Amino acid sequence: MTDKLSTQPYKGVRDFYPEDMAVQQYMFNIWASTAESFGFEHYDASVLEPATLYRAKGAENAELVNEQTYTFTDRGDREVTLRPEMTPTVARMVAARWRELSGNAPVRWYSIPNLFRYERPQRGRLREHWQLNCDIFGTNNLAVDIEIISLAYQVFKNFGASDEMFVIHVNNRATMQLAYQSLGLMDSEIITSITRLNDRKDKIDDDTYFAELTSIVNDDEELARTIKHMIETPDSGDNQVVQGLKELGIENVILDRSLARGFDYYTGTIFECRDNHTDNNKTVLGGGRYDNLTRLFGNEPVSGIGFGLGDVRMKDFLESHNLLPQNLNTGPEIMIISIDEKTNLEVLRIAQEIRNSGKAVCSDLSNRRVGESIGRAAERKVGSVIVVGEDEVVAQVFTIKDLETGKEKTGTLAEIIL
Amino acid sequence: MTDKLSTQPYKGVRDFYPEDMAVQQYMFNIWASTAESFGFEHYDASVLEPATLYRAKGAENAELVNEQTYTFTDRGDREVTLRPEMTPTVARMVAARWRELSGNAPVRWYSIPNLFRYERPQRGRLREHWQLNCDIFGTNNLAVDIEIISLAYQVFKNFGASDEMFVIHVNNRATMQLAYQSLGLMDSEIITSITRLNDRKDKIDDDTYFAELTSIVNDDEELARTIKHMIETPDSGDNQVVQGLKELGIENVILDRSLARGFDYYTGTIFECRDNHTDNNKTVLGGGRYDNLTRLFGNEPVSGIGFGLGDVRMKDFLESHNLLPQNLNTGPEIMIISIDEKTNLEVLRIAQEIRNSGKAVCSDLSNRRVGESIGRAAERKVGSVIVVGEDEVVAQVFTIKDLETGKEKTGTLAEIIL
Repeated sequence: MTDKLSTQPYKGVRDFYPEDMAVQQYMFNIWASTAESFGFEHYDASVLEPATLYRAKGAENAELVNEQTYTFTDRGDREVTLRPEMTPTVARMVAARWRELSGNAPVRWYSIPNLFRYERPQRGRLREHWQLNCDIFGTNNLAVDIEIISLAYQVFKNFGASDEMFVIHVNNRATMQLAYQSLGLMDSEIITSITRLNDRKDKIDDDTYFAELTSIVNDDEELARTIKHMIETPDSGDNQVVQGLKELGIENVILDRSLARGFDYYTGTIFECRDNHTDNNKTVLGGGRYDNLTRLFGNEPVSGIGFGLGDVRMKDFLESHNLLPQNLNTGPEIMIISIDEKTNLEVLRIAQEIRNSGKAVCSDLSNRRVGESIGRAAERKVGSVIVVGEDEVVAQVFTIKDLETGKEKTGTLAEIIL
Repeated sequence: MTDKLSTQPYKGVRDFYPEDMAVQQYMFNIWASTAESFGFEHYDASVLEPATLYRAKGAENAELVNEQTYTFTDRGDREVTLRPEMTPTVARMVAARWRELSGNAPVRWYSIPNLFRYERPQRGRLREHWQLNCDIFGTNNLAVDIEIISLAYQVFKNFGASDEMFVIHVNNRATMQLAYQSLGLMDSEIITSITRLNDRKDKIDDDTYFAELTSIVNDDEELARTIKHMIETPDSGDNQVVQGLKELGIENVILDRSLARGFDYYTGTIFECRDNHTDNNKTVLGGGRYDNLTRLFGNEPVSGIGFGLGDVRMKDFLESHNLLPQNLNTGPEIMIISIDEKTNLEVLRIAQEIRNSGKAVCSDLSNRRVGESIGRAAERKVGSVIVVGEDEVVAQVFTIKDLETGKEKTGTLAEIIL
């Protein structure tokens, strides 16, 4: 066992050193406080879930479970999956207690889970990431669709984003279904193919889109032209959610009939927040309404609407727009420096006394040169230092020095701290 | 796929509904704020670690990895383990950056990781639990041993615990080693056996202890008697850490020469906080000094001292002593009730206006009987309600009702919220 171990983390996951963790916590705190300001309650669950939870959603997901998740068999022969998304978990929890929860419907819940995908690591797509998940269960009232999208909007605003920095795309799966049917398209497989093509519309050129669309509708060019025209028709004010958001004063919202969202379980409103920055032209947040998820558990259907917002995409957005604070301080407010070994214990005592007044205090017991200790405290952006030697201990008179202004104050502990 | 899915979580792990999450968050917040009040910085890492990280510590741990951890092989043929403890991870992270970190030594770090053990679920020993981990790296100054134990003490105090509720047991591995050697015991295997026996001393009766001890020292009854006497000798004031803590005013601390702590990597001070409650007479927190952990990574040795405090044990302690607040409110401060569909949007607008003043506001868009909505808000312990109908919208005059006192206040939004 003399082999040298690697200090690298497992492939595709991140270590969070204090400076990285400060960024995570900054984001998580704004996520949590925004969700709570809308009356959302915090829930969580284990990262371990029975693999059947993901297999049950249908063939497309079986592939996902087999190839893109961490799934293994435990020693009790149970198949376990590291959760790749939170929606099946929250649907499971809601289904388990819907009878008691429904009394307080709609239920507004949020969580900040870590999620796992087994895939090739690339920018913005790590094997583990964190996500803000917000959901409202137990009503299909469109006012709630407006509310949850305004929560998504408010998250961005609470990071200091302006309306120019992002656009909210809104569409409705049920409306699109009706639109296709009114064009005579009754085959649900064709509609699914068009929906998937629309999902890529932004990434391919007009001619390619038209060619692929024509091919999906069995080479009926006129039908393809009609569909393309319908998809591209500007908003005529018929989407109540878009109108409602505008009435609330949210201007950076558009009806986007090409918006598809990948997951098959959406049944009504779907939405995304996209970064407007040319360097980071990506979807930062996405969600929608689903009506059938709790049915898998043998329950009555519970309608829900929710969104997910990932930490990596969020950080990319904040960095692109210079919205991340430069000095996320991780150090203490006050450093108490012990001149020599004899004063170490007294420094610990003084530190606790100041802590009792609500301040974060660190003790420097290194007993090195005082100048060096002060210099290092300044580098760490500590607010103030108190140097303690035997004279100070005997007199119980101390000097606190503000490291930014250089100002000093001398007196008893109570005098200098207040 | 018509099989009904179970709503149960995976075996041995927990779902955290909002009322459970409120307890977790209450504990995590006090853990974090106490650690930060001592100048500790927050770090984290992924739950996924290379399995080699745990195998490397020696044969005892190989068994642990094989039988008591979640270890599986990923599709890239890498062996992955769900972290069973945080110390190897933090040692890895410290070793990776020690050159830059050492400039600010000692480094004080904390984390609140979830940890996984594959074992039979039982009270207090689930397959997944959370733990406060605090460590100080880069000094073996005994004043730092005193500091970290006083942090452990302060965590309990910050939950409202009195000194009578718990006892801090302190011992020192190196001192014990010397004591055994001074009794002529040079065989490290015998010393390890005695240490392990001591670990169980509280759980077995005196005669059994003596019999097992005698057997370990090859039936030398006199030696066994001498060892037992040494172990049981009361504190004579020779342990500097115990004395230092007492000088800081911490009275519920004892030198306990039988204290062993299971992990082999401890090299100096070891300590535990034990619950004094007769119903929950358990170790709540444990830790110690280790000097060799970073050597595994080919680095110079970095001395560290740390402790772990689990969420389940912490909650048991708080419940045993009635220290858990009864009303950990998870609901919003204000509920705005929309009388009918026409006022829903206006309610969303008003809610956001109040939110902008810093309050948590929830909208009730159910449009059910107002009395029922108010009743449910009261059940959820919402502070105040505002009922909004068309009259209020036209006049822009609203009435806020405090649900506890029944007091009402009428005026413009600005007037009633301030």
